[in-house]
Amino acid sequence: MTRIVYVNGAYRPETEAKVSVFDRGFLFADAVYEVTAVIGGKLIDFPGHCARLRRSLGELGLPSPATDEEILAIHRELVSRNALDLGHVYLMVTRGEADRDFAFPKAETPPSFVLFTQARTAIETPEVGRGLRVASVPDLRWGRRDIKTVQLLYPSMAKMEAKRQGKDDAWFVENGEVTEGTSNNAYIVTQDGTIRTRALGHDILHGITRAAIMRVAGELELRIEEKPFTIAEAQGAREAFITSAGAFVTPVVEIDGAAVGDGRPGPIARRLRAAYLEAAIAQAI
Amino acid sequence: MTRIVYVNGAYRPETEAKVSVFDRGFLFADAVYEVTAVIGGKLIDFPGHCARLRRSLGELGLPSPATDEEILAIHRELVSRNALDLGHVYLMVTRGEADRDFAFPKAETPPSFVLFTQARTAIETPEVGRGLRVASVPDLRWGRRDIKTVQLLYPSMAKMEAKRQGKDDAWFVENGEVTEGTSNNAYIVTQDGTIRTRALGHDILHGITRAAIMRVAGELELRIEEKPFTIAEAQGAREAFITSAGAFVTPVVEIDGAAVGDGRPGPIARRLRAAYLEAAIAQAI
Repeated sequence: MTRIVYVNGAYRPETEAKVSVFDRGFLFADAVYEVTAVIGGKLIDFPGHCARLRRSLGELGLPSPATDEEILAIHRELVSRNALDLGHVYLMVTRGEADRDFAFPKAETPPSFVLFTQARTAIETPEVGRGLRVASVPDLRWGRRDIKTVQLLYPSMAKMEAKRQGKDDAWFVENGEVTEGTSNNAYIVTQDGTIRTRALGHDILHGITRAAIMRVAGELELRIEEKPFTIAEAQGAREAFITSAGAFVTPVVEIDGAAVGDGRPGPIARRLRAAYLEAAIAQAI
Repeated sequence: MTRIVYVNGAYRPETEAKVSVFDRGFLFADAVYEVTAVIGGKLIDFPGHCARLRRSLGELGLPSPATDEEILAIHRELVSRNALDLGHVYLMVTRGEADRDFAFPKAETPPSFVLFTQARTAIETPEVGRGLRVASVPDLRWGRRDIKTVQLLYPSMAKMEAKRQGKDDAWFVENGEVTEGTSNNAYIVTQDGTIRTRALGHDILHGITRAAIMRVAGELELRIEEKPFTIAEAQGAREAFITSAGAFVTPVVEIDGAAVGDGRPGPIARRLRAAYLEAAIAQAI
């Protein structure tokens, strides 16, 4: 089956889904994106993704491509046309097409708006069962990681460095402390049972799944503190895990070759995953 | 006249010059570029740009799209088809088209290769005559600015911040010292007549025009030292200027509101510009 992709108002076969080489997303990485999970054909945490998209657009002075209602309708149309049961919808907004210039184009330049689906086969992947092995790498990304831009070359390079080391993913380290994973937020569970994750700021993505996990942890009466941690603290933790729209909650069992806890997925990560998925699916639209 | 653009082996009208939305240049900024000046229909510093392209490709493990001879032939064909006398040729190589994944696609994935021309009307712009006014901004770019990637959102934002302040361009400052301009290398001439510019490293672009200026300065028996400088040192300097493939050598006459020297383009910048252009035009191919 050929995937159907949304490009600037039209639904096209994926082989015909194209943008101009003069698009600022292509020439300047002048673009933001969102990824919304789909379970049972329904959208997970959609309002959160829409709100973060608005924030990213606002921070960069990017024009809005559509109303929230229109964006929801496009998501649903793509899910329907591609018969997507499980997977996600990728959304991207660029500053549009203009002859190459570091200065932004005229304000009335229409943004480019692209959405496509990607299917997955199962919620419970083998990785969830065995837990992830991560490698630390220096965090060389730009200074505004809170804006969800497509400047993803370094996270992509870090993912490949992890694979080169035979690991699953990388954690970024800055000034001796973990910022986050390549495309996910990072957490540990300290020996006294407290969940710890870095506070929001310009140095990490404001994860939609992270926000949901904070709520879920509260409901489960788990202690959670927003405080950075070092690789050594993570290696000495009881548990570790990541969250993202794609991974939901996924345990981390090894960091730079050292087992976390007993080297198996921990009970708190498992409880959070189950509780998050239950609540998210109940609220899916 | 419709511009003719090169896209993956074909010469197309600019309105039909498109790439897939799945191109990694579009989704991950996984791409590098070069800009080669054209004067009198001939290419300036072409071997230098080719060598730097090879270095950028190598650093990122990007496949080569063509031999140097083929790249030269495409440049010449575009200059000819677009009757370009004065301007430049933009070249970009991406890791090609693949379904979205942080991991790189299979090594045999063909790179995308795009080139287009941009015309200019004069070598001696009004800006050269009056000199540039620059504003300093914090350097928030990623840690490998020596690789010429299309992750240009922050330089683009900095250019807009300079314009908002009524200035021409921005200089990036990191740890109290100037790294470079938004799309150019930065220099001062100290009170004792020494040209000073930051040494090469991961924190600045290895400018092709910068390398030429080092040679030209040597031939003119001007003292040049590779050492960083602060904004205060630049404001107290005798002269300041920038270099790039587009600006050649262009004087800077004001930094954060303070005049440099007497606030007019200085004699050393002027001599370097004339000598650089003379040598570059003589060697153009």
